[in-house]
Amino acid sequence: MSELPQLAKELDQADELAPLRDRFVLDSASGDAAGPAGVYLDGNSLGALPAHVPDRVADVVRRQWGELRIRSWEESGWWTAPERIGDRIAPLVGAAPGQIVVGDSTSVNVFKALVAAIRMADAGRDEILVDATTFPTDGYIAESAARLTGRTLRAVTPAEVPAALGDRTAAVLLNHVDYRTGRLHDLPALTAAVHACGALAVWDLCHSAGALPVGLDEHGVDLAVGCTYKYLNGGPGSPAYLYVRRELQDRFDSPLPGWNSHAEPFGMSPSYAPAAGAVRGRVGTPDILSLLALEAALDVWDGVSVDAVRAKSLALTDFFLRCVDEYTEPGRVECVTPGPHAERGSQIALRCPDAGEVMKRLIARGVVGDFRHPDILRFGFTPLYVSFRDAERAARTLGEELA
Amino acid sequence: MSELPQLAKELDQADELAPLRDRFVLDSASGDAAGPAGVYLDGNSLGALPAHVPDRVADVVRRQWGELRIRSWEESGWWTAPERIGDRIAPLVGAAPGQIVVGDSTSVNVFKALVAAIRMADAGRDEILVDATTFPTDGYIAESAARLTGRTLRAVTPAEVPAALGDRTAAVLLNHVDYRTGRLHDLPALTAAVHACGALAVWDLCHSAGALPVGLDEHGVDLAVGCTYKYLNGGPGSPAYLYVRRELQDRFDSPLPGWNSHAEPFGMSPSYAPAAGAVRGRVGTPDILSLLALEAALDVWDGVSVDAVRAKSLALTDFFLRCVDEYTEPGRVECVTPGPHAERGSQIALRCPDAGEVMKRLIARGVVGDFRHPDILRFGFTPLYVSFRDAERAARTLGEELA
Repeated sequence: MSELPQLAKELDQADELAPLRDRFVLDSASGDAAGPAGVYLDGNSLGALPAHVPDRVADVVRRQWGELRIRSWEESGWWTAPERIGDRIAPLVGAAPGQIVVGDSTSVNVFKALVAAIRMADAGRDEILVDATTFPTDGYIAESAARLTGRTLRAVTPAEVPAALGDRTAAVLLNHVDYRTGRLHDLPALTAAVHACGALAVWDLCHSAGALPVGLDEHGVDLAVGCTYKYLNGGPGSPAYLYVRRELQDRFDSPLPGWNSHAEPFGMSPSYAPAAGAVRGRVGTPDILSLLALEAALDVWDGVSVDAVRAKSLALTDFFLRCVDEYTEPGRVECVTPGPHAERGSQIALRCPDAGEVMKRLIARGVVGDFRHPDILRFGFTPLYVSFRDAERAARTLGEELA
Repeated sequence: MSELPQLAKELDQADELAPLRDRFVLDSASGDAAGPAGVYLDGNSLGALPAHVPDRVADVVRRQWGELRIRSWEESGWWTAPERIGDRIAPLVGAAPGQIVVGDSTSVNVFKALVAAIRMADAGRDEILVDATTFPTDGYIAESAARLTGRTLRAVTPAEVPAALGDRTAAVLLNHVDYRTGRLHDLPALTAAVHACGALAVWDLCHSAGALPVGLDEHGVDLAVGCTYKYLNGGPGSPAYLYVRRELQDRFDSPLPGWNSHAEPFGMSPSYAPAAGAVRGRVGTPDILSLLALEAALDVWDGVSVDAVRAKSLALTDFFLRCVDEYTEPGRVECVTPGPHAERGSQIALRCPDAGEVMKRLIARGVVGDFRHPDILRFGFTPLYVSFRDAERAARTLGEELA
């Protein structure tokens, strides 16, 4: 009999982050009735619900909207929520306050960031590089940004970026962690290379923020975007964020200059004058219900160190891979996530030809990961609430389904 | 003693829409304790809370997100919410199904609509006309759209539009109702004039949808946008919508082609292929909490005719003006909202030099309207929940404060 279940138990007992699991709703009524609750390894797609969020949302709806109504823009702090919540996200991605604003979708923020980066670059630079392996929306939006600004778009893999950089490069849009393979790209080195050639670096942090240290300020990243519904657990479709490095904020020239980014938004002036600071990244009226659900969700980070999260993430994915190794016949799946820690995000992607069917059967048995076309089984490990026992059970169930 | 309080009572008794008031939360706990609840005349800024919305939102948070988690994208209908809710809004603005999609802010939708309109216009047409009296964000975004597409932007009043139209005109962005004065512009005639010159008409319906008939299909409007948190009561910052006339959908070329508008969004193809229909107006991951709060809020329209709403709106604003006339000394305020019904939206704007101070005192006495810089008192009349007694009390309190 395998020693792995016992080892998982011991690892959980030694895990300092284990108590954080209680901050989330993980054991649904149906799960309790049917025996042990499921294993949720899809927090890299939609983070689990923090336990205190429903009451906070109810207060926003019933009291702030229902009773205070319009007064809440001031009295409930609605108006300043985008920058206030940005400052809550800032420490999780290594940013000092005043550089992040929350609102709009990731796609819309990629558009703002990339067009603004192009406008900050020297006028003669006419090429944009985009990660060829990126989540598709980044590529589509980059194509639109290039078209609207009269630049050329070139798709290259992150590994090819250093060689592709040159005098023509205006900006480079990269993903910190590949959504499919879980590969972690070298943000410090790539940012330095982009800067060495005189271009701007724009990073998409969707699959890294909340799972590992990002170090935006430390590494001199120019602009960054990210979603908040994965490792930040903000809820389905919760608003994304935009980071603009402080020294660049005065040159941030938004392609979406809505009234919320005006220096005097209630002056209702017909001519646009941009606000100073992160606020310049705002556009229209902020989406309050989703914003304040996100704000509440960020409370789970109180007292949590991102370094500790990263350490547990690597321990979890190492352990999961060891379990897969033991429970699955050799050659049945191929791991496409890099082995070296320096190249691994917080997910494990396994390739097998029948991945779609296998994932359906796993989900039916309460092990929830996801399938990425055409042949990838994707398992996300959110260190705040995934346990080593979860990892062992997922690998064991997978082994049974693959047998 | 004035006969107006008695008349208000009789008008309320005869009002067929009066029972709809019970569908909303209007009498807050504090209002009950302090005597009669307030009068809310700011539904043209933030609509009141429909009474059933809190339970629906709680279900979305606790069950759909908390228990079903990622499965809700399919099982709870999250993925199709933008177009499904668009079809709920459609009859309120005179649109057949399949032409409206909900998501993003009004500002972002103005950008999509205007850039798409420019791209649909003949290439030689290099000028965009924008309503000089518009809500500022529309003008700022129009300026950005012009800059990014190499067009010239010209600001004219709606009255000047017919004379300004010509061979150079690509598109015209107009507001159906002026946010400040409450003036209703002639959508059918202006749309016809824009079409006669070969340009496209883009309408902003923020201050008309839900308050009066719009007739998008009937009048051949090309593209339209609107918010959902005013007369549609979707909640603070609830997502806006985009209408693209069916015959133009195949030519809708979005400047924000996010993965949600892809023909095969889960194919994760690196090249963009737009979906058919209204879905093409989607961008990134939809904001589910706000979207489903809006969907619930739209239930208050069940069985309600927009024509009946319009009739009550005009009766309310007529009655309010009559009350102001009787309760306020002549010349103390100037009404900047047009008298003729054909030129009036669902608000009354009164000008007086001390408007800011007067509004503060009104709010302190429970009569909530709003102040628009520099000298406008703005009172919005949402026929679904504002009564004639509300109108009388507001005018009486105003008269006392102005005395």
